[in-house]
Amino acid sequence: MIWVSGWRLASAVSNAGGLGLIGAGSMYPETLREHIQKCKAATGKPFGVNVPLLYPEIDKIMAIIVDEGVKIVFTSAGNPTTWTTFLKGNGITVVHVVSNVKFALKAEEAGVDALVTEGFEAGGHNGREETTTMVLIPLIKGAVKIPVIAAGGIASGRSMLAAIALGADGVQVGTRFALTHESSAHQKYKEACITSTDGATVLTLKQLTPVRLIKNKFYEEVKALEEQNGSKEQLEQLLGKGRAKLGIFEGDLDEGELEIGQATAQIRHIVYTKEVIEEMVKEYNESVQKIQSI
Amino acid sequence: MIWVSGWRLASAVSNAGGLGLIGAGSMYPETLREHIQKCKAATGKPFGVNVPLLYPEIDKIMAIIVDEGVKIVFTSAGNPTTWTTFLKGNGITVVHVVSNVKFALKAEEAGVDALVTEGFEAGGHNGREETTTMVLIPLIKGAVKIPVIAAGGIASGRSMLAAIALGADGVQVGTRFALTHESSAHQKYKEACITSTDGATVLTLKQLTPVRLIKNKFYEEVKALEEQNGSKEQLEQLLGKGRAKLGIFEGDLDEGELEIGQATAQIRHIVYTKEVIEEMVKEYNESVQKIQSI
Repeated sequence: MIWVSGWRLASAVSNAGGLGLIGAGSMYPETLREHIQKCKAATGKPFGVNVPLLYPEIDKIMAIIVDEGVKIVFTSAGNPTTWTTFLKGNGITVVHVVSNVKFALKAEEAGVDALVTEGFEAGGHNGREETTTMVLIPLIKGAVKIPVIAAGGIASGRSMLAAIALGADGVQVGTRFALTHESSAHQKYKEACITSTDGATVLTLKQLTPVRLIKNKFYEEVKALEEQNGSKEQLEQLLGKGRAKLGIFEGDLDEGELEIGQATAQIRHIVYTKEVIEEMVKEYNESVQKIQSI
Repeated sequence: MIWVSGWRLASAVSNAGGLGLIGAGSMYPETLREHIQKCKAATGKPFGVNVPLLYPEIDKIMAIIVDEGVKIVFTSAGNPTTWTTFLKGNGITVVHVVSNVKFALKAEEAGVDALVTEGFEAGGHNGREETTTMVLIPLIKGAVKIPVIAAGGIASGRSMLAAIALGADGVQVGTRFALTHESSAHQKYKEACITSTDGATVLTLKQLTPVRLIKNKFYEEVKALEEQNGSKEQLEQLLGKGRAKLGIFEGDLDEGELEIGQATAQIRHIVYTKEVIEEMVKEYNESVQKIQSI
């Protein structure tokens, strides 16, 4: 949720009954502090911060999180062993994002409080095993004792119910919130997403870190380089720095990385976060009723 | 379900309360006739035949199906326009397998009675869009009026309920039945599948027809050739003929294609078909109860 989930989206989610997360991955340490402070001012409800553990200034990020009294941290993209003890020692609940059983077990051993299981259909950075939400939830739920929060392809009340049916204890919603008014993504990016159809996204850059994005001009360049048997170094050079910011935050639909999940094909309107949550809960309850009547 | 679903598996599924399908894709026309006749002798319940429409002797296959009085045909891998009218004119119910919205609409227009929506997690040949079951079911259900049968990643009562929650009217189960006693697959293939973990399968040969299989020696050869920028012709040469038979039916775990879905990681035992269906129905009902109690 880099370039998407600042204090505005996080506080809106929390105010509407969810657990809002600030995405620290796209923020300088002092920017994160500002977002945490603004989020605290905007909601009295709990919220959390998502921290990619490979973040270069991770020490500063963690110090700010403790200093500002954040109570919930979601960690991703890295080894949870290093930071879990520190965070829990500071009274912080730790949730770690995984996409396979092996790392689920490692994270549980590292002492995290819960897991997010991220399926192949999720947007942005993603696992190498390509296991989908439908298969991943039961596998991880069967392997660990801690609670499991499902992510990947969950953008409606029906998919929320499907995740719960598969054994999840909760759901994490990315794509649907990225396409709300409160999301800090560029309007052009949001419009590109809500007009895209099935097959519009692809998991690419697998030689580097696999990432799901919309097939645009930049992706076609990646594909062409891969077809010419380009090296990892050439791919890194093509990717360069700041492509996600360029696409998501600045709205450059040709040159930017337009990270989004497959579920974008189900989303046709940019609405307010509150409407998303109300609609999801309503559809969830209706779907439970429908299943009872079969 | 080539090399897996002969009369023995199909009749066992039908006798246990499902709709058994004979997979014609791996059969000579007269072999199919023999399987249909044996299936009729083994069950008084309805069963069907799955026909890949790109089959070389498709005219003979269709003539045998009509001649033997088969009442249900599932078509896949090809354009349903050509054969749907013929089949329906002979009083046969036609179900077509699709993996995107565009072909779902085309199949509906061609007059098929229902659709199978096949997600990225499914074993064997698969769609190019890589849309997962979680995302595909609501998209196709929302686009067509005819019934939708979900396939891909459905191997338990929980995943069956998830599919129904997503809007499916029924489910098609492949991988779980491929790993039963009645499946005609080789014992070595079945054992390789039930001991594989998450990440053991991959969607490969995307330059030809994408196929999901277990990462074995043959797959490593495909990968190496792709990394050396091998041409389509070189890949076709490497693939050759009869790899699926070699792997699935003859049990050559190194040189064969071991086609199976991601859900294989959830399956640890080879059991009888009847047990699969009883267990799925039991778990489905338990999961409905559990959801009501949340």
